[in-house]
Amino acid sequence: MSEIDLLRRIARKARAAGRGLLLGIGDDCAIFRSRGASEDLLFTTDMMLEDVHFRRGTHPPETVGWKALARGLSDIAAMGGQPRFCLLSLAVPRWAGQDWIDAFYKGFLALARKTSTPLVGGDLARAERMSCDVVVCGAVPPGKALRRDGARPGDGIYVTGPLGGAALGLETHSGAAWKKHSKPEPRLDFGLRLRGRATAAIDLSDGLSLDLHRLCLASRCAAVLDGEIPVFPGATLAQALHGGEDYELLFTARTAVKGAIRIGAIKKGRPGLVEFEGKPLEPSGYDHFTRAI
Amino acid sequence: MSEIDLLRRIARKARAAGRGLLLGIGDDCAIFRSRGASEDLLFTTDMMLEDVHFRRGTHPPETVGWKALARGLSDIAAMGGQPRFCLLSLAVPRWAGQDWIDAFYKGFLALARKTSTPLVGGDLARAERMSCDVVVCGAVPPGKALRRDGARPGDGIYVTGPLGGAALGLETHSGAAWKKHSKPEPRLDFGLRLRGRATAAIDLSDGLSLDLHRLCLASRCAAVLDGEIPVFPGATLAQALHGGEDYELLFTARTAVKGAIRIGAIKKGRPGLVEFEGKPLEPSGYDHFTRAI
Repeated sequence: MSEIDLLRRIARKARAAGRGLLLGIGDDCAIFRSRGASEDLLFTTDMMLEDVHFRRGTHPPETVGWKALARGLSDIAAMGGQPRFCLLSLAVPRWAGQDWIDAFYKGFLALARKTSTPLVGGDLARAERMSCDVVVCGAVPPGKALRRDGARPGDGIYVTGPLGGAALGLETHSGAAWKKHSKPEPRLDFGLRLRGRATAAIDLSDGLSLDLHRLCLASRCAAVLDGEIPVFPGATLAQALHGGEDYELLFTARTAVKGAIRIGAIKKGRPGLVEFEGKPLEPSGYDHFTRAI
Repeated sequence: MSEIDLLRRIARKARAAGRGLLLGIGDDCAIFRSRGASEDLLFTTDMMLEDVHFRRGTHPPETVGWKALARGLSDIAAMGGQPRFCLLSLAVPRWAGQDWIDAFYKGFLALARKTSTPLVGGDLARAERMSCDVVVCGAVPPGKALRRDGARPGDGIYVTGPLGGAALGLETHSGAAWKKHSKPEPRLDFGLRLRGRATAAIDLSDGLSLDLHRLCLASRCAAVLDGEIPVFPGATLAQALHGGEDYELLFTARTAVKGAIRIGAIKKGRPGLVEFEGKPLEPSGYDHFTRAI
C-alpha cells in the first residue's frame, strides 16, 4: 500500500469536520480559522527518522536539525504562508551525547531565527533511534492559502529553480549539491509572491514526477511537461524528474510569474496523468511510505 | 541530564518570541492568539514510542491509538481548553499489517469523535519501530488558560480522582485498573469548570510527586501534602504518589471545588519542594527522558 492509498483510507475514516476547520487531510497543510480571526492558520507536521530520512554517519547533527524544520517551512511556503511558530518532538537516541543534541538544536534554531519561526514547545523522550516530528504553523490572509486542487486546463506549470540538486548532493556529498541537500532553503518569499497569482501549488519534497502527480490528482486534471526541465548543474535528467528534497515550489498559473521557469501545462485527461516526451511519466519520486534512503 | 534540565537548556536557547505568542516552552501547552481572534489557542505535542511508552506484546493497537491522543487531550484539559483539532504523525513499523494500522486508527478516532477533536492532517513513514507524535489544538477565552505558574502560598492542592490506578493496571493487566491504564479519559469537562477558579493546574501524566514538583517549580513555591491521598482501589500508596499516566488533573485553588479532593496546601519555601509526612518527597515519578517502561 502506498502513502497515497493509506492517506485516502485515513481521510475517509477521519471525515474531519469541526469549528473553524477549512481544510483537512490531503494538502501540504491543514487550514484553520480561529474564532473572530482576520487570518487563516496553516498547520503541517513532518517527521525526521534515523535510517529513514537521514543517516547518523552521513548527516551531521546541524544538518538534521535544519532539515527537520525546513520540511515543514517548505509546506508553509507552498501554501503562501508566513511562519508563526513551531513545535518539536524529539526522541534522543542513546548514542547521542550532549554535543550531538546541542548541534541538532543549533541547526534547528538557526533556521528558526532566519525565518522568524519561534520554537514554542514540544516533547522529549529517550529511544533506541533518533526520531523527531516538527509542526509548523503559518498564516495567510483569509481565503488566500494556495492549495493543490485549483489547477485548471490551460494553466502553465512552473518551478522556482533547478531540480535534482538534492539527489545529486546525497550521491556526491560535495559542493553546491550537498548544500542543496543538507541545508535546503524553503521558498517562503516566493510563496508570498504567489498569493493571488498561482492557481495551485505544492512543494517539491518527493520529486517532480510524484508531486506533480499529486497536484494533478487533487485538481482532477492531467499535465504535459513540454517545457525544458531545469536541471541542477551536474545532475541527471532522472534526478531532476524523480529526485526528492529539492524544496522548490511547483505551481500552476494562468500567466507567467517572474523568476519562475515554465515546464509544461495542465490539460484535460485522466486525473494524475503526467506526460513527458509523448509517454506517461511514472510517479516514481520518493514515497516515504514505501521506500527508505 | 533529566527532562527538566534539558527543557531549561532548550528554552534558554530558543528564547521564543513572535507575533501572537503568549506562552512558550515550559507549560502543558503553548498559547497563541491569531490576529484579531476572540480566543486563545493552545498547542501541545506528545510522542508515543514503541518500547518507551508502550510494548507491542502488552498493548493492543486500539489502546495505543487511544492513548496517543489521550495524552495531548489531557494537556488541553489541564489548561481549561476545549479541543479544536489534532494532527498525527505515524511511523508504521514493518511488523504492523493493515489490521494493526486499522485498529490503531480505530482507537485514535474513537477518542477523537468522543471529544470532538477532528484529525486534520499528519505525516506517514515506514520505520523499524512504531512511533507517533500527536499535536492537539484547543481553545480558551482570551487570557483564561490555566497555567502552572499561578499557585500562591495558602492555596489548597486538589486532584480530580484517585491515583495509582494506571500504575496498578500496567502491573496486573486486569480489571478497572487496566482500563484506567489503557483507555484513560482526559478530564476535559473538569478542566472547563476550573477556568477562573484554579490558580494553577497541570495534568498527572508522570506521577503526583514529579508533576507537583513541576507545578511548584513553575510557581516558585513549595507544597505540603497534608490531606489524605486518594488511592485507586488495590493500588499502593507508592503507586498513588509516583505512578504515571493517571491523567487526572492536579490544581491549586483558593476555595474548594466540588468533586475535587483536597490533598495539601501551597506554602512558602524552596521552589519545587514537596513535603509528605514531615519529609521532602522525592520527585520520582516517570521522567520520560531518563527512564523507559
